[in-house]
Amino acid sequence: MPLGAPHERSDAARNRERLLNAARDLVAEFGAEALTMDALACKAKVGKGTVFRRFGSRAGLMMTLLSDSESEFQAGFMFGPPPLGPGAAPKDRLVAFGEGRIYFVLENGELLKAAGAATRNRFEVPATKLSHRHMEVLLREAGIADPWVMAMSLTYALDPERIVDDVRVRGISPTRLADSWRELITRLLKAD
Amino acid sequence: MPLGAPHERSDAARNRERLLNAARDLVAEFGAEALTMDALACKAKVGKGTVFRRFGSRAGLMMTLLSDSESEFQAGFMFGPPPLGPGAAPKDRLVAFGEGRIYFVLENGELLKAAGAATRNRFEVPATKLSHRHMEVLLREAGIADPWVMAMSLTYALDPERIVDDVRVRGISPTRLADSWRELITRLLKAD
Repeated sequence: MPLGAPHERSDAARNRERLLNAARDLVAEFGAEALTMDALACKAKVGKGTVFRRFGSRAGLMMTLLSDSESEFQAGFMFGPPPLGPGAAPKDRLVAFGEGRIYFVLENGELLKAAGAATRNRFEVPATKLSHRHMEVLLREAGIADPWVMAMSLTYALDPERIVDDVRVRGISPTRLADSWRELITRLLKAD
Repeated sequence: MPLGAPHERSDAARNRERLLNAARDLVAEFGAEALTMDALACKAKVGKGTVFRRFGSRAGLMMTLLSDSESEFQAGFMFGPPPLGPGAAPKDRLVAFGEGRIYFVLENGELLKAAGAATRNRFEVPATKLSHRHMEVLLREAGIADPWVMAMSLTYALDPERIVDDVRVRGISPTRLADSWRELITRLLKAD
């Protein structure tokens, strides 16, 4: 049956998306610690075997969730519409990047912390390297003398732990963080 | 014997200083992991009991070492000569502060990492709070709209882990870090 294969693939994709959405709901409601294979099977009303076949392990599930969200965010700054994507001035792209990153981290903070804790060195997370590279290119375009090191300073200013703790522990609103990021970039890249 | 007490105190102070110097030599030579009570007793040619009476535990010894160095650095930016201390423009004081911090972290990186790892939240280290407060005051004086949040961004840009890894893992020279910090502060606080 030649028409079977596409249908199967689209069923599989739908099931995968349904599982990932259930997983995201669990994290949003109860935090990353609550995301176990059992809890996901229960929430998505599937057998535990299905969850294991799909993601291999709890760590695999967390990485899949995160890389799904990271890919979406990365697509935004690499190929999306301006000012986040190409076509705007470096200053405006950097402002949009930091704002986007702040809200992204607040949505995915638990997973990002878990992923960061799983690596010896937080900078070794591939998504962090890509963010750094993106900022480096924009800073060079804007005339910063040492864009590699400056991008590292900005990477640490956007550290997930910092953003999550500012908002959840120290009571700073996401808007205040975004406004301060805008002030930082606007002053940093003001025309000489 | 009325003259005994001052002599005893000065002997005790000398012995303490001798032990701390031996401990600093051990850290400089072999890293913080090598700093054990046994190794210190051996290096300083005293009994192990003396080391325990003086510092209580290995953790106590590390905190004493660090707080000694931090106090010296803090005295520099609070009461020392300008541009690090009072009497210079906020911009020049912040440039000097970051440069001083970079070299301080490189000298004390192993201990700072150990102290940071010992607390749940890196920002809860008292010296970090004092540094943050110092930068906040200078940023307010310089007209930054939200000096508390901006000081937090700069605190993370000077994160000990970042500085140590940039230099030891990623091969960036301390001079490059200091130059980039100067560029960051100079542009951030350029007169409007």
